[in-house]
Amino acid sequence: MINHVIIKKILHKGRNLIMKKLKLEDVAALAGVSKTTVSRVINRRGSLSQKTIDKVEAAMAQLNYHPNVIAQQLHTQRTNLIGILVPSVANPFFGELTMYLEDALFQRGYKVLISDALNQTAKEERYLSQLMGHQVDGLIIATHNNKLEEYQHANLPIVAIDRFLRADIPVVASDNYAGAKLATEALIQRGCQHIIHTYTTNPSNWHDNQREKAFQAVMADHHLPAITYTTAFDCPPAERTARFERLFDEHPAVDGIFASNDLDAARLLSLARARGYRVPADLQIIGYDGAQATQELVPELATIIQPIEQMATYAVKLLADRMAGEFTPTSTVLPVNLKTGQTLKTLGSSSTGTDELLEE
Amino acid sequence: MINHVIIKKILHKGRNLIMKKLKLEDVAALAGVSKTTVSRVINRRGSLSQKTIDKVEAAMAQLNYHPNVIAQQLHTQRTNLIGILVPSVANPFFGELTMYLEDALFQRGYKVLISDALNQTAKEERYLSQLMGHQVDGLIIATHNNKLEEYQHANLPIVAIDRFLRADIPVVASDNYAGAKLATEALIQRGCQHIIHTYTTNPSNWHDNQREKAFQAVMADHHLPAITYTTAFDCPPAERTARFERLFDEHPAVDGIFASNDLDAARLLSLARARGYRVPADLQIIGYDGAQATQELVPELATIIQPIEQMATYAVKLLADRMAGEFTPTSTVLPVNLKTGQTLKTLGSSSTGTDELLEE
Repeated sequence: MINHVIIKKILHKGRNLIMKKLKLEDVAALAGVSKTTVSRVINRRGSLSQKTIDKVEAAMAQLNYHPNVIAQQLHTQRTNLIGILVPSVANPFFGELTMYLEDALFQRGYKVLISDALNQTAKEERYLSQLMGHQVDGLIIATHNNKLEEYQHANLPIVAIDRFLRADIPVVASDNYAGAKLATEALIQRGCQHIIHTYTTNPSNWHDNQREKAFQAVMADHHLPAITYTTAFDCPPAERTARFERLFDEHPAVDGIFASNDLDAARLLSLARARGYRVPADLQIIGYDGAQATQELVPELATIIQPIEQMATYAVKLLADRMAGEFTPTSTVLPVNLKTGQTLKTLGSSSTGTDELLEE
Repeated sequence: MINHVIIKKILHKGRNLIMKKLKLEDVAALAGVSKTTVSRVINRRGSLSQKTIDKVEAAMAQLNYHPNVIAQQLHTQRTNLIGILVPSVANPFFGELTMYLEDALFQRGYKVLISDALNQTAKEERYLSQLMGHQVDGLIIATHNNKLEEYQHANLPIVAIDRFLRADIPVVASDNYAGAKLATEALIQRGCQHIIHTYTTNPSNWHDNQREKAFQAVMADHHLPAITYTTAFDCPPAERTARFERLFDEHPAVDGIFASNDLDAARLLSLARARGYRVPADLQIIGYDGAQATQELVPELATIIQPIEQMATYAVKLLADRMAGEFTPTSTVLPVNLKTGQTLKTLGSSSTGTDELLEE
């Protein structure tokens, strides 16, 4: 039962498609290159000299030729679109990650469909369901919502950033255990005895456990009590502030804070100063993430710097390998760095006091 | 001259398309709704109850049915994609703007193609050229590169944010003149006599002139010298810092700084503190933008808050109107707010000194 109206429409489109093909030849003739080269310039495939790109683009501009991408997609069954899901690009860490992902994908000829999940499971779910309609060639997921059923059925190439989705979906992450160990040891080495770790819990439970485990282990090694304050990933800012105020009420003698993200570290720094703590003399603070914008806005904050650019580069490389059907590692863990700042004491200054701990 | 191979391929795709149609009927039958309703759920068009959405999505999940978006696009000549070009989502202002744009577009059934121009004219140009191939239904532009030739020929609906592109492209902006006036008057009212304005120049020259004009006018009204330091929009961070160091070398008596963005304000605050200025006793500082992340990271910073959410909402509304062929205003200017903070003196405190100016 063939619907003749639809077939007629498709034949009509087909003719338009052929007209486009003829124009592709015109571009090739004008630029003095082959049709294949024009096609490769349009799709940014293979290695192309800037001279060739410029020649072809000049010819396209002169003819006012814009390739019909939709017809191409029907022909190739590829969209050259990659979907990126992040909690929110308004967060400096995810904003910077998205910037590097977009740039790395652009270099490979892909364009980026972005979705801010905004910590809404329903939004992530609906978005994913739409993407399954072959609108993207692959997905990069960095959200923290509940494990969605959708990911179990997805037959698209997917790469996750700092999140476990499914056994066969590769993960790129920085070394959360090493980072938390570095941060905790930095505080202990500088004489802190009453240290609190603050971190954000989320249902995907990938990195937070690692950071908390490292904190617990280092504190136990030094026979110090490990105190942890958690807040849910979707906790409203006012509630988060109230929770941190309670932290100071309950532990007025706190002399070290390891905050598992820089936004919380900055908030704690501000609350501590308002309560009259001298930082770092009375209280030392270290954050986590080290996004460029955060480092520019709060240059004094000590932090653990995640290699955001490299995380993005590796995620894109992995996704390209998955799309090409190549072998990929299950997880790729990248090293982190300690950035000291004015919220930590200078090591070796007399004020640290505990020589024994300095041996670490 | 019809190419029979291509026609054959298209007929083959046509059959697949018809098979998808049959599956759409299956979804409708299983969900107990009409085919039109299924189609509306897929495309998020018209008003739908959550109950209907849930029923249809459950049926789609049960049949493992994913609509073939590419075939739909060929049929409707619409992609339901909107392209957003920003300088960089790693910047808290543009990250937040992108988040709100994406959310407003998602509510209307659109998905977002994002490009970080990264202040590279060549990248913006290449990206635009690709988008002209009907891959998007509309564009929202917030970049600051040179006026590109492409925008002159674009026959797509376009909305610009805080940037002039072409006489018939509507602009959404916040009130840059009023914002700069508020900031400058806030410093003068609090006793500043030696005020410096720092701002970033960019080739699109839309908002900066307004802010500089307001600064000049307010200073002239108060018979105060108007000193301005400019940096190019693509100035590397280290060079920008060097320029600000020179500002303090050349004007050690500076007692007020109006920085036309919060990143610069935070940088100036940090440099001033390192030089021993007491803020706000010796030097008062006010920034511009007021992104949420910036307010969280540097809560003490006084700033002019742009209505980022409303700018995004209006831009999306305008774009929807343009796409529907409706009448739209040329420019839409939204009000800004002064956020006082610990980098400004408290008004009325005895330390401000100049009673005369307090009458403002």
